[in-house]
Amino acid sequence: MVFESKIKTIEWIGEVSRIINQTVLPYKFETVDIKNVEEMYFAIKDMIIRGAPAIGIAGAHGVTLAAIEIAKTTKDKDTFLKELKKQADYLNSSRPTAVNLNWAITKQLEIAQSVKGDIKEIVDILKENGKKLENDDIEINKRLGEYGADVVPKGAGILTHCNAGALATVGYGTALGVIRSAFAKDSSIKVFADETRPRQQGARLTTWELTQDGIPVTLITDGMCSYFMSKGMINMVITGADRIAANGDTANKIGTYTVAIAAKYHNIPFYIAAPLSTIDISIKSGSEIPIEERSSEEVTHINGNWICSKDVNIINPGFDVTPNELITGIITEKGILKPDFKISIEKALKNN
Amino acid sequence: MVFESKIKTIEWIGEVSRIINQTVLPYKFETVDIKNVEEMYFAIKDMIIRGAPAIGIAGAHGVTLAAIEIAKTTKDKDTFLKELKKQADYLNSSRPTAVNLNWAITKQLEIAQSVKGDIKEIVDILKENGKKLENDDIEINKRLGEYGADVVPKGAGILTHCNAGALATVGYGTALGVIRSAFAKDSSIKVFADETRPRQQGARLTTWELTQDGIPVTLITDGMCSYFMSKGMINMVITGADRIAANGDTANKIGTYTVAIAAKYHNIPFYIAAPLSTIDISIKSGSEIPIEERSSEEVTHINGNWICSKDVNIINPGFDVTPNELITGIITEKGILKPDFKISIEKALKNN
Repeated sequence: MVFESKIKTIEWIGEVSRIINQTVLPYKFETVDIKNVEEMYFAIKDMIIRGAPAIGIAGAHGVTLAAIEIAKTTKDKDTFLKELKKQADYLNSSRPTAVNLNWAITKQLEIAQSVKGDIKEIVDILKENGKKLENDDIEINKRLGEYGADVVPKGAGILTHCNAGALATVGYGTALGVIRSAFAKDSSIKVFADETRPRQQGARLTTWELTQDGIPVTLITDGMCSYFMSKGMINMVITGADRIAANGDTANKIGTYTVAIAAKYHNIPFYIAAPLSTIDISIKSGSEIPIEERSSEEVTHINGNWICSKDVNIINPGFDVTPNELITGIITEKGILKPDFKISIEKALKNN
Repeated sequence: MVFESKIKTIEWIGEVSRIINQTVLPYKFETVDIKNVEEMYFAIKDMIIRGAPAIGIAGAHGVTLAAIEIAKTTKDKDTFLKELKKQADYLNSSRPTAVNLNWAITKQLEIAQSVKGDIKEIVDILKENGKKLENDDIEINKRLGEYGADVVPKGAGILTHCNAGALATVGYGTALGVIRSAFAKDSSIKVFADETRPRQQGARLTTWELTQDGIPVTLITDGMCSYFMSKGMINMVITGADRIAANGDTANKIGTYTVAIAAKYHNIPFYIAAPLSTIDISIKSGSEIPIEERSSEEVTHINGNWICSKDVNIINPGFDVTPNELITGIITEKGILKPDFKISIEKALKNN
């Protein structure tokens, strides 16, 4: 049974990429029309759009926007492709950790290079492919949602960290996709959302989108997970991923690793839900994944207000790496990958 | 070597209890003069004063304030003592988890009952004993600080959760007392403060008081601890306690248990720093400790502003219980208690 979400996070419309502005949720719902590659660069960097699969699509649309612009000033295909590559690299530098951005940008560049026709044809095909990636993303999420729902026990308490929902993808979600699919089958499941400091994507985005879709959710602060696990109220954890190494080590929003350790201590299954495009086979283990360091203001301020002494030191890693030994399974559109992940990942990618 | 803190959290002056208003820190420094038992009840309940040892002293002062009031309307000693017990019970109900409140209130009641003289004499002795408990608290903290400093490795990165500092005691601190003593010997130690959602005592209070005393501090969000442990930047954890059961299980601010699990996973020592008055020998294990459930607004709001969807469920336990198996040692004024805690606690209390 597939649950339909009302949310469309990113959508190519005519000549623009229309995205939901996630920096103003849950206070205000607004969409922004991104009209060129610079706008897309800052939309990703400033997290107007975020979530690994969603910024993948944003990257794809960004390449299309670059192509439209470049086509206005050159008729030479070689010059066009060279400039397109330059703009794509620029876009790719907007955020370092999620691999889906690089994945989608590379896909678009490969397509652009493979087109036999003229520049206009390239631009048209890039637009089309962007739309195709949008649809694929929803389909992939629904498929992995179904696989994931099969391992959710009846009435389970499910904890999720950050937002791996419709807002992190085109419109269904990875971790929240599993929750949507599970909820469609069994409305007695209980969803717990970690607040996810410093940017509070759990509080701001996950509670908003689940509420929009009529799925009840309990918001907890990041330190509370162990308490509810020890009380038997949280029975499993499902999070998204920003990059998965060849051995299954998984980078995800800061705090995920702490939740995974707590789950292990309580013998509670900990699942990652992510499309296969989140796997970076070129990277052997988690230690090689670049971890984005973000602004100190994210920690010292909430909603523009100081929350601490002004003389503190801040280190603000945006992500952490959960080692494979803490992961029960990786829920993908090709089924649930199990340890040994090196083998199961290789097999899944081979058949892809 | 003893570090002198500039902070005096609670002090009996003339006929009032003067306390630092912790709800407005770090934005504003102000003291409040508490003039009667009702004011003290709400000062404790609303966390104008908080921290297990500090609310112990507040309880002692509260009994004195009650005695002063009752003395105005009765000359009969039996009536006086009966009414004092009633007011003391009322005060004791202001917060359920920290045992020090009950400990100090009981001490004052015992003293009142044992005085041979008249009501005026009882009032004077309660005032005096309140002052004595203040001084004892600082002395106890300094002693436990010295014991604790001995187990801090040179240049260690120390994580603390919530505020177990001068602001949680009369003026030196338990966990932060250890850090003050350690810093006096070795200024190369690095202090990490957990933000401690939902009330952010780490961000608001710990960073403020360490900064006041010139001790550098790095503020991190609650989910980050495991990341810094895995990077070798956090080498030990020291927190306070609100109630310690006879077997060493320890109730402390929500989130402590998660930190303790993360420390165990990384083989990092996890210490509790608390005066012996925090031990509740009448309670066999942590499961018997009452856990205060606090207002949902603490989770849904920060500085008066909503931070999530308005349709969320909230469960807001103020404390969690760290099982003894995760605790390396309990730092007290009589030395560091080690497992088996049942034995070491019994021994420490016998010699007290």
